[in-house]
Amino acid sequence: MRRVLLLATCAALATAPALGQSVDRTQTTRIIDEGIAHSEVMLTAEHLADVIGPRMTNSPAMRTAEAWTQAKFTEWGLKNVHKEGFDFGRGWYIVASSVKMLTPRPIQLTAIPIAWTPATNGPISAPVIVAPIARVRDFDKWRGKLSGKIVMVTLPNTGSEPGEAPFQRYTGEELGKLDQYQQPTYNPEAADRRLKRLDFAKKLDAFLKSEGAVAMATMAYRDGKLVSGEGYTFGVGDTPALPAVQIAAEDYRRLARLAKIGPAPTVEINSDVRFDDSDTRAYNIIAEIPGTDPKVGYVMAGGHLDSWVAGDGAADNGAGSAMVMEAARIIAKTGIRPKRTIRFALWAGEEQGLLGSLSYVESHLATRGNPSDPKQTGLALYMGWSNRWPITPKPGWGDLAAYFNLDNGSGKVRGIYAENNPAVVPIFREWLAPFGPMGAKDVVIRTTGGTDHVFMQAVGAPGFQFIQDPLDYDSRVHHSSIDTFDHLKGNDMRQAATILASFLVNAANAEKALPRPPLPTKPAVTEPFAYSDEDE
Amino acid sequence: MRRVLLLATCAALATAPALGQSVDRTQTTRIIDEGIAHSEVMLTAEHLADVIGPRMTNSPAMRTAEAWTQAKFTEWGLKNVHKEGFDFGRGWYIVASSVKMLTPRPIQLTAIPIAWTPATNGPISAPVIVAPIARVRDFDKWRGKLSGKIVMVTLPNTGSEPGEAPFQRYTGEELGKLDQYQQPTYNPEAADRRLKRLDFAKKLDAFLKSEGAVAMATMAYRDGKLVSGEGYTFGVGDTPALPAVQIAAEDYRRLARLAKIGPAPTVEINSDVRFDDSDTRAYNIIAEIPGTDPKVGYVMAGGHLDSWVAGDGAADNGAGSAMVMEAARIIAKTGIRPKRTIRFALWAGEEQGLLGSLSYVESHLATRGNPSDPKQTGLALYMGWSNRWPITPKPGWGDLAAYFNLDNGSGKVRGIYAENNPAVVPIFREWLAPFGPMGAKDVVIRTTGGTDHVFMQAVGAPGFQFIQDPLDYDSRVHHSSIDTFDHLKGNDMRQAATILASFLVNAANAEKALPRPPLPTKPAVTEPFAYSDEDE
Repeated sequence: MRRVLLLATCAALATAPALGQSVDRTQTTRIIDEGIAHSEVMLTAEHLADVIGPRMTNSPAMRTAEAWTQAKFTEWGLKNVHKEGFDFGRGWYIVASSVKMLTPRPIQLTAIPIAWTPATNGPISAPVIVAPIARVRDFDKWRGKLSGKIVMVTLPNTGSEPGEAPFQRYTGEELGKLDQYQQPTYNPEAADRRLKRLDFAKKLDAFLKSEGAVAMATMAYRDGKLVSGEGYTFGVGDTPALPAVQIAAEDYRRLARLAKIGPAPTVEINSDVRFDDSDTRAYNIIAEIPGTDPKVGYVMAGGHLDSWVAGDGAADNGAGSAMVMEAARIIAKTGIRPKRTIRFALWAGEEQGLLGSLSYVESHLATRGNPSDPKQTGLALYMGWSNRWPITPKPGWGDLAAYFNLDNGSGKVRGIYAENNPAVVPIFREWLAPFGPMGAKDVVIRTTGGTDHVFMQAVGAPGFQFIQDPLDYDSRVHHSSIDTFDHLKGNDMRQAATILASFLVNAANAEKALPRPPLPTKPAVTEPFAYSDEDE
Repeated sequence: MRRVLLLATCAALATAPALGQSVDRTQTTRIIDEGIAHSEVMLTAEHLADVIGPRMTNSPAMRTAEAWTQAKFTEWGLKNVHKEGFDFGRGWYIVASSVKMLTPRPIQLTAIPIAWTPATNGPISAPVIVAPIARVRDFDKWRGKLSGKIVMVTLPNTGSEPGEAPFQRYTGEELGKLDQYQQPTYNPEAADRRLKRLDFAKKLDAFLKSEGAVAMATMAYRDGKLVSGEGYTFGVGDTPALPAVQIAAEDYRRLARLAKIGPAPTVEINSDVRFDDSDTRAYNIIAEIPGTDPKVGYVMAGGHLDSWVAGDGAADNGAGSAMVMEAARIIAKTGIRPKRTIRFALWAGEEQGLLGSLSYVESHLATRGNPSDPKQTGLALYMGWSNRWPITPKPGWGDLAAYFNLDNGSGKVRGIYAENNPAVVPIFREWLAPFGPMGAKDVVIRTTGGTDHVFMQAVGAPGFQFIQDPLDYDSRVHHSSIDTFDHLKGNDMRQAATILASFLVNAANAEKALPRPPLPTKPAVTEPFAYSDEDE
């Protein structure tokens, strides 16, 4: 036992110097001083969340954020500050909204217009009907019953019994469990299902319209009076015919119970929402700290600047945007001249399908061919992206030496996901070492999804996402009406921005670029005898 | 060891039959069948919470509830159904309300008019000022700065980090910890502090008015967009000069941050609230199942029917009211004829100081003299009630053989507090025995406070409150905007109503009335060398 331990220690000592050649710890110390003691990350986050507020892609507030973030990058001395556009769709924003129960007794309800639904053009009032409709085959049941009604399409449930603490930090044991290799799978039906859901939303709107319904109402998926209001009909020509609101669970359920005992309550909806079609392109914001050697490529950090609109887009993802910006400010302020260029990106359209980072991948890294399933031909790129073959790398594919993403709220960094790439594990361990006393220690092998590094990994580019303490992100803040600045944690964000800055400098100055994942050449293994979990 | 155990077992066997003489388990079985299998408790609760809605004392909805509950008691065959009035104050209710931030960007805020504050008479808008004022000595700091402002008087904090599950049931260990004798204490300054708080509220209103402020805003004490809106200026002549709203924590904090970086946000308040002075008396609702022996007194169950207005008064205390009513229905339906009369009370004015049950005590049980502290002379009865001497029992004092209260939300009964009275412990243990398999097992010695049995105990009458599972009552439902029917638990309420019915029948049919606590004759021990925790 002892001998084995000794050997392991010797092995660690033997490899550490080799890996450590490119890490200059005096730079780390300067980065920590600037990032912790002289941080501006909370000023940046406060401006994004409080002053600008929620930043729906292509909304006027997002345009303000696009201009303000470019101005800050420029003010901090970054170079090549610019925006890169891609086709998106309509701008949409809420001027004011109100949903009231008028009978049997007056109550102001908590509700939000669903994103990209049309205005009511003044208050409209009508009796509600609870008509749970989850699929096309439900239409027949309600045909002829919806005329003149506000149609409540969600099946109401009852109050939740939350048995876990809403605010959490990872324990060592939980972090240990993340260090599990996950075999890649590819479910060819996933894109089909996504397509079906979008298609169903359009069919439902058309059905309700044809039946003479006056508006649609859904139930918020969290209770406790939180609303979120996500919607996906942002394309030009995709706008629904009917106004639609998402009603807080408590208010929705009360309406549903009253409707069941009858007479159905009358509800008044006033959605003063506006479309802005002045520019249907969305924009990623790009800024750089130029490297000293133009031949060795670049490293990159990113986070999405866009948000939903129920709160202020503070944790999702004002926090990540502010930390990416802060990393830029820290490095610029220290005067460190990296060998590789360090590029910073603030993505648009993340909430609608990682569209900004996808556009970056398509423009700079690689294209993918036509969907292998002919049904998916003509779909938006992000639907079934991983089912398009072949992958054709662009000339700049190899230049991206590393990408680091932040999009898990304001929790401090506890480590990083290695994306099933064992070759990066010892390198990341070394880069994290100075931050162990700040709580960041774990390099875990597994992949993580759901945000802007995904499409980079999907074309064999080294994209990574940090592990962050969960805090109350999933339990109550994510997309909700309390995604506000007061739920951000300053100590955590200072730590995370500092670690990001340090990783970027290490990656930019490393002798060799990070070991890359293999370029996918065909779909991951799918066995021909396996059934998939169709939801219809 | 073994011998001791054996003796203890023999002792238990020896006492059980003696105690059990008056318990007819065939009645228990019938009560369980009616209370569980044929329950109507959720129908009653749903009508109170959804159809009638929140029931502020003396509001029109409370008047509706007073009439409806009497009608239900009558429909179920109860006798002597009537109301008993007491002087209270003004009726007050919200027709509609709205609070918006107009600048720097428009947002609908989550807020509620503070109870018994005046209307704005249409929308008023003004810049906010954050002026934390917690005591009279803070006035000087803000003099001359508040004219034309909406004054935010709460010092803003930051987002909470809730580290416990919001929804809880008692573990056996937790119940065990409740079984601790607590020495009674009497803090003569408590009434002073209460008086000072009320006095301060009036002085603050007068100060803000004299400074030319246009409205007052406070911050909700829970975060997560929950509001409650409690206020205590219900007396005729006590109405504040300024409209006042309680703003959700997230919205209040955002306003405060924006005000700090400036310019101060402009806020619009529209409080369409109304007073109803048509009857300044409040009413307890009383109903009875007459006993067969008029000479042996009566037993009683109660819960308060009044509520706050942010939610629907479902858990606090539609649940307790519905369970008390259901116990009446169960007993009436079984046709059990109790020896003692069983009286049911639905109290008013509980939320303003246990006023309904206090009025009952004063009318039926005992009066207390003048405050021992001359500063408290002339105060409302409920302030410093326990500092009034002597206690003078009324002729009916001895007739009340037992009182059981329900006011801890919709959680199932886990046991009962014995109120420091060891003599009732074995009796309650026996009465609970059939309900052990339903989770109700613990008779704990300690007292509990905060609701309508307190003033009965304070005059030596045997008033008790059940132990109920906490659920999410304290964490998010109590007084809040999600105190709605969907957060009630039907299985729990059926169990609790059934146990209450069984306790009432057992108490009504017991050979002897429950052992009474001693009649207090002077204040509980206070040592002359002890300091008290003055808050000024």
